[in-house]
Amino acid sequence: MKPTLLFLVVGAAGLCWGQAPPDCKPNALNIPEAKYPCIFPDNRVMYRVIAPNAQSVRVGNTNLTKGPDNIWSGTTAQPAVEGFHYYGVNIDGATVADPSTRTYFGSGWWNSGIEIPAPDQEFYQPKEVPRGRVSEQWYFSKITGKWRRCFVYTPPGYDGSRNKYPVFYLLHGWGEDETAWFNQGRVDFIMDNLIAEKKAKPMIIVMDNLNAVRPGESATRFASRGLVPDPSDRPAPPPAPRAAAGAPGAAGAPGAARAGQPARAGGGMLGNSAFTEMMLTDLIPMIEKTYRALPGAANRAMAGLSMGGGQTRSTTMAHLDKFAYIGLFSGGNISMAEIKDPAAFKKQIKAVFFGNGQAEGGTAASKPAAEELKKAGINAVFYESPRTAHEFLTWRRCLREFAPLLFK
Amino acid sequence: MKPTLLFLVVGAAGLCWGQAPPDCKPNALNIPEAKYPCIFPDNRVMYRVIAPNAQSVRVGNTNLTKGPDNIWSGTTAQPAVEGFHYYGVNIDGATVADPSTRTYFGSGWWNSGIEIPAPDQEFYQPKEVPRGRVSEQWYFSKITGKWRRCFVYTPPGYDGSRNKYPVFYLLHGWGEDETAWFNQGRVDFIMDNLIAEKKAKPMIIVMDNLNAVRPGESATRFASRGLVPDPSDRPAPPPAPRAAAGAPGAAGAPGAARAGQPARAGGGMLGNSAFTEMMLTDLIPMIEKTYRALPGAANRAMAGLSMGGGQTRSTTMAHLDKFAYIGLFSGGNISMAEIKDPAAFKKQIKAVFFGNGQAEGGTAASKPAAEELKKAGINAVFYESPRTAHEFLTWRRCLREFAPLLFK
Repeated sequence: MKPTLLFLVVGAAGLCWGQAPPDCKPNALNIPEAKYPCIFPDNRVMYRVIAPNAQSVRVGNTNLTKGPDNIWSGTTAQPAVEGFHYYGVNIDGATVADPSTRTYFGSGWWNSGIEIPAPDQEFYQPKEVPRGRVSEQWYFSKITGKWRRCFVYTPPGYDGSRNKYPVFYLLHGWGEDETAWFNQGRVDFIMDNLIAEKKAKPMIIVMDNLNAVRPGESATRFASRGLVPDPSDRPAPPPAPRAAAGAPGAAGAPGAARAGQPARAGGGMLGNSAFTEMMLTDLIPMIEKTYRALPGAANRAMAGLSMGGGQTRSTTMAHLDKFAYIGLFSGGNISMAEIKDPAAFKKQIKAVFFGNGQAEGGTAASKPAAEELKKAGINAVFYESPRTAHEFLTWRRCLREFAPLLFK
Repeated sequence: MKPTLLFLVVGAAGLCWGQAPPDCKPNALNIPEAKYPCIFPDNRVMYRVIAPNAQSVRVGNTNLTKGPDNIWSGTTAQPAVEGFHYYGVNIDGATVADPSTRTYFGSGWWNSGIEIPAPDQEFYQPKEVPRGRVSEQWYFSKITGKWRRCFVYTPPGYDGSRNKYPVFYLLHGWGEDETAWFNQGRVDFIMDNLIAEKKAKPMIIVMDNLNAVRPGESATRFASRGLVPDPSDRPAPPPAPRAAAGAPGAAGAPGAARAGQPARAGGGMLGNSAFTEMMLTDLIPMIEKTYRALPGAANRAMAGLSMGGGQTRSTTMAHLDKFAYIGLFSGGNISMAEIKDPAAFKKQIKAVFFGNGQAEGGTAASKPAAEELKKAGINAVFYESPRTAHEFLTWRRCLREFAPLLFK
């Protein structure tokens, strides 16, 4: 009996209850020993949730049903798209993380995560290669007046050598934070593998938080979705579907995967001048003092995803003397019209990269933008991630394509 | 109007709705910009949860009520005990993390966390002192046949020097993992502060996962609470109260805080021989190869909390030639009857430490145990954390007391 058929029988009629669906493999991001959610060979996802007194339980647009064992179960109608997806469970109108999985910070809260194996997954899996490490680094920012945290990847061999390394500053997107690139993005596995294959140079990667607010400034722009309003706020609207409650990566509903994220808005934003000032005043000097970092523009790259791409464009375009490489991952593009001095740009910027997921629709703008720069003699690279939307597999692949361009 | 009175009015009669309770300070572990949960000056906690169609919402034994703004609110009847507590929200029988807070791995799943400021909180807060860093370190274990992850604290000055450092191996408790000591435990802040005050020597601290299973062995012993059963398992019992749903640190209900944890069971367990073998075969050699670690027993300490204390006792007592310092944090104690060769023990082990929280009842056994060792000429230290139970403030304080004993 094919898993598809089996599940339809189980789900629809309650027959075969008492038998786990064969071939449904636990999500790699589940808590230890948890079997659910699980993923069928065709990438449909089965969820199981304990909510004995609930009236309604759903994940995205998949309604779960309560079985004779008092547990809610359901399988997505469509296969999920390959890659990492955030998701939440809706229990009687409350959007919460699934207690069965590890949580990831996205859309401003700690969502559940699910990982649908991709055909090219080897590039982000651990292998028996020399390993770098990711460090949590706290520092005090004079610009914001607060302690900040970033994560720093140092490449294999860093600890045993006296070498200095170039530095790549890499930003997350809206609603995420400094934990995104090494948790959701798997920076360390991707880089260890690229470096072992000699496809990328050993480098330091700094993952900071793009939110920066000067003392007294409002933080509203960066506020999380799903904040519980204060009693003094206006009455809450009826149950608002939250981003992460969208069907995680359901094929046929590509919009759902990015429902909560201002998809290309990131590319069009002006960026946050407080972040740029903080980066130049606090972050870069701290990194160059604390780590064995090569100084100077030729040894600095910057990239970001979505809103982090917008911030990257804003920061680098205002300080072209400080960076040699620019990467925008689902984060818009740069046109010739924005480049005031093409000759200087061409000399200073060694590579510009625009990447998008095939399903998110950015190609129409980014591909011709890269062509335009190339015609002007600028080393511009365009990349489209097959099948993926505004999600982390797009950005893991962007990193895989962008890192080899750096510090050559 | 005192906050206490105001809240009673709001909660009981719905009067004053539209006004946030004054003096209720957001939990430091909330997601960015989230005002709830918040903590009143007397340490009662107010929760607010969006669950528009739920019939019942509670946190521990605090039942929340739905207000005219369609949001569930409630305040604990009793003040919470100072320190870090795990908690969950029960929505119609489902125990889930509160979407308003950061999540922490405890009781085998990603709970919410709340931090009640302690009178001595300065010791675990960041200060303007030289800072170490915590690194994520992956390595392959020959004993388990799997990739493992630990976190490694390197002290201030590590990166800029060629010095070698002693190594302290520090284990979490039941249901936790290798992230516990640096997230919940704040190892880096505590150590940076102690080192700046010259109370502790600079050292490397390795935080690994005490779960280790040889290929083919069952992992059942380490299984998480709250796993969703398989349909082939026997029917689920009626809604089982899960550990983290207990009133977080409610005074007057000290048992609740440790409901899900086998409090002193950890101390009485034999420990896991696979972990010990993995530690000696894989972990210690990897650390001493990857980091600038001083070799030899005199430069090795081991401690753990709760079940991690039991593991520490088991590992060190079986390999007294490998360690010079032993710390059991709410993890039982060592009696003279267990020490086969007191003269050798006294020579090899430079310090033994037993720590407990005042409210968890371990003192009755640990204090005389330390006295007994002291009478035999062994450097045994007993510590009792005021007011706290089987929770992380007890263990932060144990670390503060234990670290200064090391590597003198």
